[in-house]
Order: sequence, then C-alpha cells, then structure tokens
Amino acid sequence: MSEQFVYDLKRTHSCGELGLEDVGSQVVLMGWAMRRRDHGGLIFVDLRDREGITQVVFNPEVDEGAHSGAHTIRSEFCIALKGTVRERPEGMTNPNLVTGGIEVYVDQFEILNPSKTPPFMLEEWIEVNENIRLKYRYLDLRRPEMYANLMLRHKAAAAARRYLNENGFLEVETPFLTKSTPEGARDYLVPSRVSPGSFYALPQSPQLFKQLLMMGGVERYYQIARCFRDEDLRADRQPEFTQVDLEMSFVAEDDVMDLTEGLVANIVMEATGQQVSLPVPRMTYDEAISRYGLDAPDVRFGLELTEVTDLVAGAEFKLFATAAAKGLLVKAINGKQMAALSRKDLDDLTSYVADFGAKGLAWVKIKPQGEWQSPIAKFFTPELQQAINQRLDAVEGDILFFGADVPAVVHESLGRLRLELARRFELNKDKGLTFCWVTEFPMVEYNQDEKRWEAMHHPFTSPRQEDLELLTSDPGKVKARAYDLVLNGSEVGGGSIRIHRPDVQAQVFAALGISDEEAQEKFGFLLEALTYGAPPHGGLALGFDRLVAILAGEPSIREVIAFPKTQKASCPLTEAPSRVAASQLLELGLRVEKAD
Amino acid sequence: MSEQFVYDLKRTHSCGELGLEDVGSQVVLMGWAMRRRDHGGLIFVDLRDREGITQVVFNPEVDEGAHSGAHTIRSEFCIALKGTVRERPEGMTNPNLVTGGIEVYVDQFEILNPSKTPPFMLEEWIEVNENIRLKYRYLDLRRPEMYANLMLRHKAAAAARRYLNENGFLEVETPFLTKSTPEGARDYLVPSRVSPGSFYALPQSPQLFKQLLMMGGVERYYQIARCFRDEDLRADRQPEFTQVDLEMSFVAEDDVMDLTEGLVANIVMEATGQQVSLPVPRMTYDEAISRYGLDAPDVRFGLELTEVTDLVAGAEFKLFATAAAKGLLVKAINGKQMAALSRKDLDDLTSYVADFGAKGLAWVKIKPQGEWQSPIAKFFTPELQQAINQRLDAVEGDILFFGADVPAVVHESLGRLRLELARRFELNKDKGLTFCWVTEFPMVEYNQDEKRWEAMHHPFTSPRQEDLELLTSDPGKVKARAYDLVLNGSEVGGGSIRIHRPDVQAQVFAALGISDEEAQEKFGFLLEALTYGAPPHGGLALGFDRLVAILAGEPSIREVIAFPKTQKASCPLTEAPSRVAASQLLELGLRVEKAD
Repeated sequence: MSEQFVYDLKRTHSCGELGLEDVGSQVVLMGWAMRRRDHGGLIFVDLRDREGITQVVFNPEVDEGAHSGAHTIRSEFCIALKGTVRERPEGMTNPNLVTGGIEVYVDQFEILNPSKTPPFMLEEWIEVNENIRLKYRYLDLRRPEMYANLMLRHKAAAAARRYLNENGFLEVETPFLTKSTPEGARDYLVPSRVSPGSFYALPQSPQLFKQLLMMGGVERYYQIARCFRDEDLRADRQPEFTQVDLEMSFVAEDDVMDLTEGLVANIVMEATGQQVSLPVPRMTYDEAISRYGLDAPDVRFGLELTEVTDLVAGAEFKLFATAAAKGLLVKAINGKQMAALSRKDLDDLTSYVADFGAKGLAWVKIKPQGEWQSPIAKFFTPELQQAINQRLDAVEGDILFFGADVPAVVHESLGRLRLELARRFELNKDKGLTFCWVTEFPMVEYNQDEKRWEAMHHPFTSPRQEDLELLTSDPGKVKARAYDLVLNGSEVGGGSIRIHRPDVQAQVFAALGISDEEAQEKFGFLLEALTYGAPPHGGLALGFDRLVAILAGEPSIREVIAFPKTQKASCPLTEAPSRVAASQLLELGLRVEKAD
Repeated sequence: MSEQFVYDLKRTHSCGELGLEDVGSQVVLMGWAMRRRDHGGLIFVDLRDREGITQVVFNPEVDEGAHSGAHTIRSEFCIALKGTVRERPEGMTNPNLVTGGIEVYVDQFEILNPSKTPPFMLEEWIEVNENIRLKYRYLDLRRPEMYANLMLRHKAAAAARRYLNENGFLEVETPFLTKSTPEGARDYLVPSRVSPGSFYALPQSPQLFKQLLMMGGVERYYQIARCFRDEDLRADRQPEFTQVDLEMSFVAEDDVMDLTEGLVANIVMEATGQQVSLPVPRMTYDEAISRYGLDAPDVRFGLELTEVTDLVAGAEFKLFATAAAKGLLVKAINGKQMAALSRKDLDDLTSYVADFGAKGLAWVKIKPQGEWQSPIAKFFTPELQQAINQRLDAVEGDILFFGADVPAVVHESLGRLRLELARRFELNKDKGLTFCWVTEFPMVEYNQDEKRWEAMHHPFTSPRQEDLELLTSDPGKVKARAYDLVLNGSEVGGGSIRIHRPDVQAQVFAALGISDEEAQEKFGFLLEALTYGAPPHGGLALGFDRLVAILAGEPSIREVIAFPKTQKASCPLTEAPSRVAASQLLELGLRVEKAD
C-alpha cells in the first residue's frame, strides 16, 4: 500500500450504482466484506454497503501488496478501496445484481476495522433465534432486509410529515415527563429527585396535551410521538411504541376521516408505491360485529357471519333450539369449497374457537344436491337443511360452521374462525392493502370484574349529541363520535371528536363512575381549560409500528423497530433494565422492597 | 338564529386573509372574541384565530337575533359566524392589520363555547408572572407571539428534516427506555415492574444508539430526539430538551462540519428568511480561550483579551508583578469609548467578575494624551502606560480592565466581563446571526474534586491520531477530534469523530480511570460491537431549543417549548410530578423512604 491513505480520499460511489457506463473509471468504495473467493490466483470479495453489493477483485498483477493483504479479509471486515471499474468476463455476469455487469479491480485498499466471526450469517439468511439477533442488533441491521425496513419506515414518516405540513398542521412536541393518570393502561413512572415521593409518568399518548393545544388555538397539530404502556406484552406489543398523532379544531367526523384518508394514501404511496383507492369504505361498529364478528374486520374476503337463529329455532337440535328460545344468537359462516378439511383440522378449529369462549363448533359439509354430512345432520329436516343452505348460499364442497351462544361469544369465536380459515386457505394472498373505517362505537362497555362502565376509547370522547340523555339512563346504548381505521384486519388508527363542553365532560365522568373529587384531582386542569372557550375539536392517532409492519409485509412490529424490546420488556443488547447504584436510589428517596 | 347551525357549514376563510377583493363575499369564520365595542347601535368584535384578526360587526338592521345574542359575547368566547364582507367606512380602516380594510357584517352566529374571564389579558400584553402563564398555558398559547414561536419551531424542524432527507439521512427512532450509564449528567430512572429492583434510564442523548446504527451499516442517521438530564436547573435548562441528532459513517471532521453548515443555513433561511454566510469561520479551542476567554465566544464584537504579562512584569504594581513572576497570566481588555462608566458601574462589574473567581478588577480610564486615570496609575511609569496603551490600541475615552490570576480565572472572568460590557453597551444590537466553529478541544479536563481526568465531551470521542501516545503520558495535552458550533456566543451544537477501534476505546477508558471491569459492565456491548468491523464515524447534535430561541429572539428556551417545566422541574398546568397510588409502587416493589 502506498503512503496516501484510501480513507483520506472521497468515497466516489456507493456499492449499489456502478454499471457498464462506468467501465474504466477510477472509483473509491467503502463498505463491508461479504463472501471471499480465491479463484485462479485472484481474490474476489463482495463489498456491501447500505445501497448494494459490488464485486471487487484483488489481482496480484495489479498490486502485489493489495493482493497479499487481501488474504486476511474475512466476513464483515470494514474496508476502503480504490480501483478501476471493469466489465466482467463473459459468463461471469450476475443479472440479479444492479452492479452485476461490472467488477472493481483494486489498486489500493485499507482494512478500516477487522471483524470477529459474526455469531450468525448475514447472507443466505436462515432463521436465527430472535434474542441473538437483538443482542447483536448492529449486525442484524446490516442485512439488506432490515435496512429496507428502516428505509420504509423513514419514508413513511417523511410522507406523513410532508402531507400534514402541506395541510396546515404544526408539529408540536409535548412533554414526556408528565402526570400519572391511572386511567386506561398502566403508567411507567419516573421518580422525581427534586420532589422526593412524587413521580412523573411517561405519556400513554399525548391525548391531553393535544387537546390543550387545540384550546391554545393551534387549530391543527401533529406529532410522530413515542408512547408508553407498562402492559404485559401479550402478542406483538412493545412497552414503547410510536403513533402519528394529530388533532384539529372546528371539525366534525368527516373532516378528520377525509384528512386521514389522504394521509394514509400518501404514506402508502411514498413508502411502497401502491395506490390506495379512496374514499375508504365506512361501516358502523354494529355492522362490523354483525358481518365479521370483530370490530377490526378483515374485509379482503367474504366468509361473513349470517344469522340463522330464526331458522334453527324449529330444529330438533337441542343446543340451537334452546339457544334460540333463550334469546341467544345462532350464526353461521360458509367455508366456500373448504369441505376437504379433515377430521383433525376440524378438531383443531374446535379447540381454536374454544379459546374465544365457544363451547363447541358445529359443522356441516355440503354434499351433492346440498345434502348435509355432519354429526348434527340428523337433527335437521331436509327442508330445514335446504333453507339454511339457501340463506348461506351453500353448494357442494362448502362447509358450514355454526356458533350458538351469547352474542359476544358467537361474534368473537366465529370472527376468529373466519380469520383462521382465511389463513389456512391463503385467502389474502396477493390481496394488497384494504382499508376500512369502523364508526359509531359504543361509548362505554361494561367491565364485569369491576362492575362498572368503562370508556371504550377514552373518557374525552364525545358522545353523539342525540344520545346525551341516555348517558345516565342507558349508557350501553350511547354511541360515541369515534372511528377506527382498519387495514387488512388490523386496527391501525383510532380517534374521535372530543368533548369541548365542560358540562358534557362532567356528565361523562359521572357515567363512568368517576366522582367529582376524583375527576378534579386527575383531570381538574382539563375541566378548567374547557371553561375558557375551548373550541370543538377532534383527531386521531395512527399506530405507526403496526402500519409500517403491514406495509413491509412483516408479521411482527419488532422487525420495523431499530432496537425493540423482548416480550419481557428487556433489551438483550444493552441489558436494560438493570440494577442501579445505591446512591441513585438514595437521591430519589426510594428503597427497593422486592427484587428479582 | 335560524335552524341551520353555522358550525355545520364549512369555514371558508381564516381570520387573517380577507381583504378588499373579498368585499361582497359570504364567509364563514370561526375563532375567539377579543375586544368588544358597542358603538352607534352596532357591536364590534375582533375575531382572532391562529392566522390573524378580523373585525366583525353585529348590526340590528341585518339580524335582530344575532345582534341581541352578541351582547353576551366576552373575551375568549369561541364563536362561529356567517356574514358578508364589507369595506370599512372611511376613517375606520386599520393599516396595521392585513384585514384592516374590511369588516364582516354578521348574518348569523353561534357561541361554540363561552369563556370565564381569563386570568390575564391576552391583548395589550403586559408581563405576567410566568407561573400563571404556565398554569394557563392553553390561554398563553393563544397569544399571536406564542403561536409565532411554535410556528418558527415547526418550520425549523421541517427545514432540518427536509435538508437531512435530501442528503441521504435516515430518520431512525431510538429507545427511550434504555440503560442507566451514570457517566456525565444524572439519569432519570424508570422502575421496571417485570424485573422489580431493576431500572431503565431515559436517554441523556441517543449517543450509543446512533453509534450502534453506524455499526449497523445505516451510514447516515438523524433524529429530532428528546433527551433527559436530571440536573439542577440553573439558568435556562429543562429536564427534557430536544436535539437534532445526526451521525455519519466514513467521514472526517470536515464532512460533518460542512454538512452541519448546510443544515443550519437551511434552518435559518426557512425559519426566519435570513441568509447565513458560509463557510462558517473556524477557530481552535486554544484561540477561542486566548482571544475571548470562553469556549463559546461571541464574535459579533471586539473587546478581545490581550496578554500584557510581559509588560507588567516590570511594574511597581505588586499584584501584577508578582503574578508575572509566579508564571501566572495578566490580560486586559479595552472597553472602547466606555470610560463614562461610573464608580458604581465599576463596583458592580468588580462584583460581577468576582462570581467567576476574580479577586479584583483593576481598571484604567484613558484621558487626553493617553494619560491614565486609575487607582493603580501611580504604580506604572509613563513609559509603561504608553506601552500598554499601544498594545491595547487605547485612546482617549477608552477604559482598560485587567485580570491577573491563573489562566482559567483570568479567561473566565474577563470573558464574562466582555459579555457584560457588550450587554450594557448594546454592542450586539441588530447584529443578526453570527456562527463560528470551535475545534480541537482538549480530550480531557481535570476534575479537582474527584482528582481524576474526565472526558470534556464524552468518552467515545476520538483523540487525534497523533496524540494517541500522550493519552497515558500527558492526557491534558491530548486534543480531541471534537467541534462545537457557536451562535451569537451560545453553544448550539457539538460533536466529534468517534472512536471506532476497540483498542483506542480501551485506552481512552483507561486514561479516564475507568477500570476494565467497570468499562465492561457499563459499555461492554459497545466494546464488543467495535470488534465486528465498526466503520469510522462521527456526528453532531444541535441544541434545538436554544437554536430556536435565538432565532425567535427569545431570552429563554421556555418561550419556544409548548409545555415547559419550571426551574423546580414541575408543570404548573398538570401539577406533575405528583403522588401516585400505593398500588402503583407496590407493583414496582418500591417504597418511598423520604418524601417532601
């Protein structure tokens, strides 16, 4: 190697851009070594940076020094090199690579930093234990798939900001050290040193602050905000997550929903190039539950729930007849051309729906001429069978599934069964992105454990004006001015028109069993703010991690978060959370009573 | 009022845009009432929204109902109205207002929400106790000045993002729940419920994560990141603050500094319309201290420090002569044409510099023919007086100030005196924005209390290659590859080229007296990450609150933060921090030992 260091030169190109038009150029590349192959006296290395891969060749005829040093190069060595672009010999080109027509003959190079053998292979990816990936996240992120996910997330955020900026929104930062209001999920607390015995809470969302900004006359606010919930991490949750949070003054439902449709269409287009067809269809909560069993319906396929209570009321099948007589609900879904399901499949599905409270799963396979094949067939007259077939549009090769129970169980279990069938039969394959709105949610739901009504969204959601009187007399009937945005069966956003009148807010707190005193203590500042000319306002938050994961085609949000936590809310890389020095606790006036 | 609600109509205009070209148009406005004046049977109200103010007129001849209802309107009532734009009568126009040529004659209106009398006036602003402003921040933010600050901040953030996006940077979100590394400032801790006795820490900066992203091959990262430091809030600090955080791979100092200059020029242009002249001048740390006494010099004016140790060594003035003999430093600044300072002024200045360790402040007023007027004049021969005059370019009307002590005290006290003189004589008035870079900071400084060397920036800052050997032999002489960006005498940014080689990182930890064991425990994951081909990298963080405050011409960063904390780290609006439920602490396994 000569006196002049390659690293002192300007990098001229990325590893993802050189082509035949560059043949003959002198270039400076920097990146990481992938495969090294020694072949015919030459050493071939695939050099990777974030933009792509370029094959570089160390030839002893070009530079003896460079060639012999190249023998030491191993996977993930960080390298700078200078060389000349050459066309690859015939038969050696790689049409799968942008740079596959060329290679760089190295004149000079430096190893900027060597690497130990990585704990897992970055190329020819095979599934690696996720804990290992997270512990060595800095290696995991070097994989092009992971970089693509970060890039997609970046583009999605940039698109959101651009669109909202263009629509008159102000990005405003709200506090992270805020007040604990143990309503909803569990807060993460932050002990105060200046006021020992007092605590801040990390925000579960900027909800109150964005409402205060509307009261402050900002009119249109947004923030891509980190939020925190100290929940048990079932499923695919993270203790900290990100939402695109927005709020608007002087609006009604349609204003927020129209704006949001433009927002997601722009995000999808700029992040993935796909067109979202607008307007996004809307259905009420009642319709979603009735047709799909769930409030976040996957509308990419049929398999809708159909009520048959009236038909089965006359059947000899006791379970259904009794259910109908007791005023319970009997519904069915038609698994179109799914009759090939085996006995074992059906047993699996029965146990699957049991998780959602179903006490069993009656099924009927449809044979030629609509004949039923089923353990329960004998309890149904041929006329009744035909009537049910007709209502469900059942033909040979179909399979019917029945649920009979209280409505909540029937809807939940058949709704989940519907998704499980779609998964097994790949009904969503290549279906792309399908959005829908669900509107007119119930204002409250009854918490059986605590024997009280709870806000279904949050206690700042406005009830419909015409339902105000029901708040005290029949709260379960009150509809909220709330709306959820659903993408491919996942809730990716939710919002509402908020309460802006102090008397209505007080009524809602009362309906939720929050005493005046408690309301004052927790939300006194909000109630007071409402008395100073608060404007009508509403907004929405998009679950950004989930949205990006769906756009990236990733099953888990952890794949689109640079440094996620495990299901135990720990970070295998930094080993957070960890013990701290006794002096730190002393300053906070705290003692650990119980430790793992 | 008619059956149709005004609020159901679309708002057609903001309160800041109607002009003579709109005369005759039907418009719908929404906003807040300011002054109400009853005059000649008409009621005049200034309606304000975030865009401006429009005068609206309730005329009983137009709508009897609207007019009588208008009597109830008070300050800060939130109102929707429909009306017709009319030219104001001659003599009634207001040239100070965009909309000052017109008024809106109201056909119909609604009070969307009444308001109690605000605790302070929003118009004709008089200084209000800041605690009251913060308690009613939602009213304070309605003032056009505050909205302008939020808008400026929004524009600055948007400009930063646009520029960085265009320069190949990825916005990546790093964790808030991370590991406590009690290096530098005090961490805010977050107790873990899943692992009782363990704690997360809120990040003091995303420093380690951005370095890990470079090791992960991201190459160019940025984030407008909230950071947290549990420090005593002297001066103008906040427990949570925002920085524009960026990091780049395969770079040296010039790359980061050039990029940053483009960044701040874009921010300044888009937020304020001002042009920053590039390149930003650079000076070394040693030069900054020598000429200005401080490492964040205000270079908008002269009053530089000049050494006179050699000259005063021969004076009869014991203090100076002894100082010179002991190898201490004697410096002076020339207060050009400031000799009119009174005895009281000089006493004040003497007590001012005493705060920075100066044991006194010798001064000399220059009379005709360069004659000295000063208590110490008699200890200096006329020749010596002339020699000093000459070196300091002193002429009649000037006043010289001297400092004689260890260099640190001389520089700090004269450096501060320099700023105080500039403040008193308004030397910076209308001087605009002046940036400069300070480079080649010392790697370490000696902590007298703890008798050990400490990192001046942070322990991941790279020493200069040529100084590596001094790390063990003479650490105080090692220069770091660090640079600060200074704007009008305030540090608004700082960064460095980082260490990317594990052996160098280990050497630096050793020089800082961090044992191998301690380094492993705190930064083991970083040391390990360096062994897997970490690329050379460096970056910078801009103090976004301070930068925006300077651009807004605000003395305090609290004026550019929507919901700031007080000096006691509390929020007068939400009353955070606050007591929490015993059950919350029980779940965390914590007990409060000491409470306020």
